[in-house]
Amino acid sequence: VKYLFEITNTDLLARKGIIHTAKGDIRTPCFVPVVHPEPSKNFIDVQTFQDKYLVDFIITSSYILRKRFENKITNLHDLTSFPGPIMTDSGAYQSLLYGEIELTPKNVIEFQEFIGSDFGVPLDIPISINDSYAEAKMKVEKTIERSRDISSLISNTNTKWVAPIQGGKFIDLVKKSAQELGHIEIFDMFAIGSVVEIMNNYMYDTLLEIILTAKQYLDPKKPVHLFGAGHPSIFPFIVAAGCDSFDSAAYALYAQENRYLTNTQTFLLDELDEFPCNCPICSTISPTEMKGLKKNERVKLLATHNLYVCQTEIMNIRRAISSGTLWNLLESRSRVHPNLRKGFNVLIKHSSLLLPNSSSTKKKGLFFVSDSDLEKPEVLLHKKRLSELKLNKRKKLIVLSILNKDITELYDLFTNLKNIMKSNDKLNRNYEFWILNDYFGIIPLEISDVYPLSQSVSVTTLPENQLMNIIHSTLDFITKLKFKEIIFLGELAEFLTILQNQSFFTFDKEKIKAYNFSVSQKNFDKIKFILNSVF
Amino acid sequence: VKYLFEITNTDLLARKGIIHTAKGDIRTPCFVPVVHPEPSKNFIDVQTFQDKYLVDFIITSSYILRKRFENKITNLHDLTSFPGPIMTDSGAYQSLLYGEIELTPKNVIEFQEFIGSDFGVPLDIPISINDSYAEAKMKVEKTIERSRDISSLISNTNTKWVAPIQGGKFIDLVKKSAQELGHIEIFDMFAIGSVVEIMNNYMYDTLLEIILTAKQYLDPKKPVHLFGAGHPSIFPFIVAAGCDSFDSAAYALYAQENRYLTNTQTFLLDELDEFPCNCPICSTISPTEMKGLKKNERVKLLATHNLYVCQTEIMNIRRAISSGTLWNLLESRSRVHPNLRKGFNVLIKHSSLLLPNSSSTKKKGLFFVSDSDLEKPEVLLHKKRLSELKLNKRKKLIVLSILNKDITELYDLFTNLKNIMKSNDKLNRNYEFWILNDYFGIIPLEISDVYPLSQSVSVTTLPENQLMNIIHSTLDFITKLKFKEIIFLGELAEFLTILQNQSFFTFDKEKIKAYNFSVSQKNFDKIKFILNSVF
Repeated sequence: VKYLFEITNTDLLARKGIIHTAKGDIRTPCFVPVVHPEPSKNFIDVQTFQDKYLVDFIITSSYILRKRFENKITNLHDLTSFPGPIMTDSGAYQSLLYGEIELTPKNVIEFQEFIGSDFGVPLDIPISINDSYAEAKMKVEKTIERSRDISSLISNTNTKWVAPIQGGKFIDLVKKSAQELGHIEIFDMFAIGSVVEIMNNYMYDTLLEIILTAKQYLDPKKPVHLFGAGHPSIFPFIVAAGCDSFDSAAYALYAQENRYLTNTQTFLLDELDEFPCNCPICSTISPTEMKGLKKNERVKLLATHNLYVCQTEIMNIRRAISSGTLWNLLESRSRVHPNLRKGFNVLIKHSSLLLPNSSSTKKKGLFFVSDSDLEKPEVLLHKKRLSELKLNKRKKLIVLSILNKDITELYDLFTNLKNIMKSNDKLNRNYEFWILNDYFGIIPLEISDVYPLSQSVSVTTLPENQLMNIIHSTLDFITKLKFKEIIFLGELAEFLTILQNQSFFTFDKEKIKAYNFSVSQKNFDKIKFILNSVF
Repeated sequence: VKYLFEITNTDLLARKGIIHTAKGDIRTPCFVPVVHPEPSKNFIDVQTFQDKYLVDFIITSSYILRKRFENKITNLHDLTSFPGPIMTDSGAYQSLLYGEIELTPKNVIEFQEFIGSDFGVPLDIPISINDSYAEAKMKVEKTIERSRDISSLISNTNTKWVAPIQGGKFIDLVKKSAQELGHIEIFDMFAIGSVVEIMNNYMYDTLLEIILTAKQYLDPKKPVHLFGAGHPSIFPFIVAAGCDSFDSAAYALYAQENRYLTNTQTFLLDELDEFPCNCPICSTISPTEMKGLKKNERVKLLATHNLYVCQTEIMNIRRAISSGTLWNLLESRSRVHPNLRKGFNVLIKHSSLLLPNSSSTKKKGLFFVSDSDLEKPEVLLHKKRLSELKLNKRKKLIVLSILNKDITELYDLFTNLKNIMKSNDKLNRNYEFWILNDYFGIIPLEISDVYPLSQSVSVTTLPENQLMNIIHSTLDFITKLKFKEIIFLGELAEFLTILQNQSFFTFDKEKIKAYNFSVSQKNFDKIKFILNSVF
């Protein structure tokens, strides 16, 4: 099997697809459980990973392998009893921590090849959150240098190599690292490192800055891994920022501390009187029964539940990517905890980076539920299109404002308006027709059947100042296009205030007509009546 | 066993507890599956409901029972093979639809007693969404009259009676219905009806208005049921509004149309390439395999999955009530679909109604993630407390503004400030100390250890106009309290603009000192330095 990253769906920077490897397919985005190389040290039988838990890809520690099994093992897959693709880290972090003297770039690569690792990492130098800029820079440069030099050290082509992207909280170092390593042919994958302490401190804003920064410089044909992803509540965000796989030991570590995961929260077993879950563990045992078990058995069941939660969240995320609803998932999940919201705020701020991959036609209608949705890629795309259109082919303008109005069926409204215009030829020949909407701003009736303009459902959520911004920029825009006549229709209270007071709108007042009334599904006739009275 | 509704936890208007009945306990909030009285017509074996799916309570149709089994059956529990408590509806809706001539208030009650229903409903007259006000009023009045009259018709004390609260979209009729029936002794439960069409039209705002309105007039010691709750995505909202139980046939109806539920969405089986779920069904079969099954078998598995989803959502909701985090769950879930948000907006608007039941001390810290959180019961409670405090015992004031600032550890800040004040006796004797925060507004340092002031974690989300509102009302408040001197500290940009321009703040400018700087965990020393320089 040729190594190939086949991408089937994209949404934001997330990619649903398959990494084809000689040892089997890895469905992305992929949760990669951290596994102890010694089977007996794992709480869950690794042999059952593929069939029972749909695990495609695992990661294990080179440091432990070297310490315990050097000169003893030759095959990682036999040892771990996992036949699928396995990643090994370089072991650098633990070596630094516990001291390992004879570690060289050469023996790190040889060892990973020797044991048959499918994805290996050159000897990187992890950055601590407490490192100074100078220290971090030195480490990044050293890691880049070593990574570049691996070609001469590689002998076995069965091991694919993963470029370690470092930099920690220093965003410009992340950029440098990604720039230097992002297009080196020898690497088949990238892995963003040095984020564990950042995550342990809930610095999700920094985490997402790091991922977004790195992503911009990495060859988009290759998968991007994240080392140490922690709690499943962060999974949708790191996927949206562009991570295709990420490992985590949380499912096992939390279990050892009697911690029970959900996709958004963590509970101590003692806090629970029922399990809010229907996984095969939770649907056969009660919290009281679980508390009564011996520690080993309890930890095993908790770890199994936690693993199910991680995998289910992954499928949920993959589903959202297929449906093109990942932004909505983030919007919802980011309201669970302030730190998740801080993370999402980074994606909102940089939403233009999320634009290129978001498919412009989706299977599902578009939902607007928050003022943050003004930054949705679909909205940015509409505004970009708008700037490329000639909006004053006709010299007169009708603007129907439905601002701050819950009109759920835009399609019906547009169809009715098109019929009104079609039935009156003079109107149709002389007037541009715009609808003014909370989220899209100006919608020219002519392009109203372009996705997603008529497939959106919204609830009014915009604060007053944002509505005013829309009105101001619309008036500004109208002024520039030099229309000879304008008819305003609909929800005009704020419009009229501005029109009366604002001197910047230097439009001859006699050429403006305004009909202020509440638009609803039921009074399309009123619009028709007003417009037909014009001609 | 005495009939008793035992409430163990409350949050918003939700109540976690147990309805003790002669046939067994009903854990609330409770999802009540709609069951066909003929066992063979159900997709899931009702005999397995209690053990496998933790179902405590079911409902079935009097209309079908009368049509098919009249004069044949004597025991509902034997027929359905469900030993736990069973509710029957009056059958009025289907009688109206299909015509049933000899239906009288008397035989409806006798029949339900005869078959051994545990919870029966008097002959109500359902209201259609298309009914005029006059029609609806007539139906409500008739239902009230019949319900009042049941005492004389009841003979068997084993059947508990449920008062049908009607009114549909006419809120004042709902109020009338609840007022008239809300305190009649003979009823052991209430049930809000005539909402199915409202839900089918996604009018979740109207639905929640109905429930909130009814709740205010119903005896709080008795459980409130909702007839026909539909999709699980609405469950958290109706629970928060005060429904203790609700039936739904969606798990089975959706399955017949190949619809696969999640707690927030619905998918057609054809749309799915993996199941985003780990229930015992989804963890043993793939979508492709399920599509290949015969219709009967497929519907059975889908219905089983759908039932698991409903029950898991209930446990999730019960968990949120125990933790006091139900508002957060609503905030998150309401961002999934505009119609859910419209529903939540009703609860936000009426949040003062949610206040009395919300416990004032919770196990978890309080999260602020949205500007809607300004209406959280905890915030309203704080403002209420504030209005009852004497805030100008000392004649001078220090205001530290941390507006629009992500300070996650308020506890640390408060502790540091208290130490600063304690270490300077003159300061302590002469100055009130307030901290100004996005969500709580004014926090007097003296009460800062009251829950949840120091246990909150927030992300700045407030739009500018709301921040300005806080500043304006604070200055207003300060003016009224007639302080002799004020020291402003911290994030003062907006403050200073207002202070300089606003004439309403008629405070001698010489008595104001302002130190504008960015507050962070790291510069408490700066605050100390400034304050000590005062004395």
